Amino acid sequence: MKAEIITIGDEILIGQIIDTNSAFIAKELNKIGISVKQISTVEDEKSHILDALSEARNRADIIIITGGLGPTKDDITKDCLCDFFEDKLVKNEEVLKHIEFLFEKYIDTPISDLNRKQALLPSKALALMNKFGTAPGMWFESEGRAYVSLPGVPFEMKALIQDEVVPRLQQNFKRPVILHKTVLTYGMGESAIAEKIENWEDGLPSYIKLAYLPNLGRVRLRLTAKGDSEEHLKNSVESLISDLHSIIGDIILGYEDDEPVEIQISRLLLKNKATIATAESCTGGKLASLFATPPGASNYYKGSVVSYATSSKEDVLKIDKKLIEKHSVVSEEVAIAMAKNVRDLFKTDYAISTTGNAGPTKGDSDVEIGTVFIGIATPNTVYAKKFIFGNHRDKVVGKAVNKSIELIREELFSAG
Amino acid sequence: MKAEIITIGDEILIGQIIDTNSAFIAKELNKIGISVKQISTVEDEKSHILDALSEARNRADIIIITGGLGPTKDDITKDCLCDFFEDKLVKNEEVLKHIEFLFEKYIDTPISDLNRKQALLPSKALALMNKFGTAPGMWFESEGRAYVSLPGVPFEMKALIQDEVVPRLQQNFKRPVILHKTVLTYGMGESAIAEKIENWEDGLPSYIKLAYLPNLGRVRLRLTAKGDSEEHLKNSVESLISDLHSIIGDIILGYEDDEPVEIQISRLLLKNKATIATAESCTGGKLASLFATPPGASNYYKGSVVSYATSSKEDVLKIDKKLIEKHSVVSEEVAIAMAKNVRDLFKTDYAISTTGNAGPTKGDSDVEIGTVFIGIATPNTVYAKKFIFGNHRDKVVGKAVNKSIELIREELFSAG
Repeated sequence: MKAEIITIGDEILIGQIIDTNSAFIAKELNKIGISVKQISTVEDEKSHILDALSEARNRADIIIITGGLGPTKDDITKDCLCDFFEDKLVKNEEVLKHIEFLFEKYIDTPISDLNRKQALLPSKALALMNKFGTAPGMWFESEGRAYVSLPGVPFEMKALIQDEVVPRLQQNFKRPVILHKTVLTYGMGESAIAEKIENWEDGLPSYIKLAYLPNLGRVRLRLTAKGDSEEHLKNSVESLISDLHSIIGDIILGYEDDEPVEIQISRLLLKNKATIATAESCTGGKLASLFATPPGASNYYKGSVVSYATSSKEDVLKIDKKLIEKHSVVSEEVAIAMAKNVRDLFKTDYAISTTGNAGPTKGDSDVEIGTVFIGIATPNTVYAKKFIFGNHRDKVVGKAVNKSIELIREELFSAG
Repeated sequence: MKAEIITIGDEILIGQIIDTNSAFIAKELNKIGISVKQISTVEDEKSHILDALSEARNRADIIIITGGLGPTKDDITKDCLCDFFEDKLVKNEEVLKHIEFLFEKYIDTPISDLNRKQALLPSKALALMNKFGTAPGMWFESEGRAYVSLPGVPFEMKALIQDEVVPRLQQNFKRPVILHKTVLTYGMGESAIAEKIENWEDGLPSYIKLAYLPNLGRVRLRLTAKGDSEEHLKNSVESLISDLHSIIGDIILGYEDDEPVEIQISRLLLKNKATIATAESCTGGKLASLFATPPGASNYYKGSVVSYATSSKEDVLKIDKKLIEKHSVVSEEVAIAMAKNVRDLFKTDYAISTTGNAGPTKGDSDVEIGTVFIGIATPNTVYAKKFIFGNHRDKVVGKAVNKSIELIREELFSAG
């Protein structure tokens, strides 16, 4: 069972926006045993869209199209679908009522003819009601294939995938079991790992694939198993992972299935009724963003001081000016003081601090570009560690965020 | 002159990572007059990669491939390129020296045979030296087309595009002028705008295309002009924009060409030698991330207090507990106090505060989900405004970030 995702939109092809929709859709499809064969982004142009649909039909059983459903003239997806299915537009009363309701409740401007036109759908389409917007999704069936057209607005698309598309796919298609297990390692390069596990890798059965995913100091090893029996796949994967542990157990930090490390951390904090705060210099709010994203985060995440300028470390975090002068703002001593003071300021159990020089210029400290100190405060202790994260700004910040998350995760796991 | 981008990687097709590389490449190509016809993400699988290359050859003059150049067995791009060009791998001495240098300088583990194999390149390839990593880029020419293969690691790919690929494309291909001008509007829906500007839109010349890009309270109107004379295109676009101003001037906030609003703000702050801080509740560090991203940000951005929990507003921002009890934590009064106190705490000229309820549950305040107060402190005044941003968590946070940026931008523009 193969799917293809077609994203329609010039704004992606000129680089104005990043296509985050496809990753979301791919993840949801994988969960229910549907592999994505290809993702294609094409122009807002009829012949190109029709070509993409024809190509996709040759590769996939399920074709999901996003974008081009707005009310304006540059939105041509419905027109293309009429051509592709030799169909015509007809008014859908249920959709029209919903559009009128949204305008009445949420929108200040009066409803216009353009908005009403959004209730015109190809006659062969089943309308998928869009709770969050005026453009409905559409479901077509033809020659054993399903075609789904969805709006490109991310939160509208997401709700439609989860509430309408996934249940229909589960009902309509027989799917194999797909199982992913991702092993998170830290501290060894991709090729060094590959050499160590060469025999293990060569012995993998044909229904299990291995991928190396290196990312800023982490290498993730992803096993993908595909078959009919979930139990059989689970057992095979578990036994392989146990073998892997005996080879590189010292660098395995944990597993990341559908749950990123930051969510694992939030669960541990909630379980222990513990709270955390952050004091960020070189990571500039990126740790706060990560911690604050899950709904309900305020139960364990108290907040952050982003002390981007050196003066803010004195003014807000109350770090002694003399300490900064003596050791420099990027130092073990300052990282420790930041972690300790932010923990006290926010009255939390744990705290993380970052201070470093991400480049491209040296800034307020003389340390080598790429140097970052990460401070960790727990209920019992405070310490900081030094890292050299290379010579590229994004890389240094990304590695500092990843490493911070890993250090606090270790503390929380060892605390139980 | 058309390009196609092929991204190789199962991790994108299972939704484990988002493809940000293609947007970057598309943007850089557009700047030099090369349109991207299609972006395709395909599996780590030889026949699929070869099919994608053949399809791309029929659509494009320039084909840029990213990914699959690592040292491990799942990286098969070089193999595929050998098949496609009927070529074989040969050792490149310059690349080998560079790999040895990187290992000596930056990497703890000893160099291995797998790493040395990264110096094997197809004989028809010109090596593009990768400053930041061990996998070189490659440049092929065949039947008037250019094929470029780049590593998938974002900062390695970016440096290669800017330093190696763009200059070579400029030298090798005659390109039309492409000009984008994006008008940023706020406060009116997509279809209401479309009705107002219908006559203007119908009168656009054939070499100028209009796109509507709605995004969380903003609608951007993008004009794309393509032709031979930059001056002629510029004049046409300027005159159209001036006409547009006379129709919807009241909702036009500004322009966003290669410069996002947050960069415009950083320029205004630097010009006026002014500084800014943020106090974030519902935006949870996202404003800090935006402000801290540009290199040199510490010259105007002092930092943020992310007071995610209500207690942190008292403990860190020193907001009077009685004020919170009297008006609720999501209120005009608390937003004003947050903006004022964070401005004083960080000793800045300007400050932004956000407090709101993004949902999905009501949290520490009884206000309706979607309610956000944004506070603005300037050297002369402090005020807050109330917004209702709808019923979806991501949407509420995104709109709060966008609106904050717009409010402070207005203040800075009116300050000169």
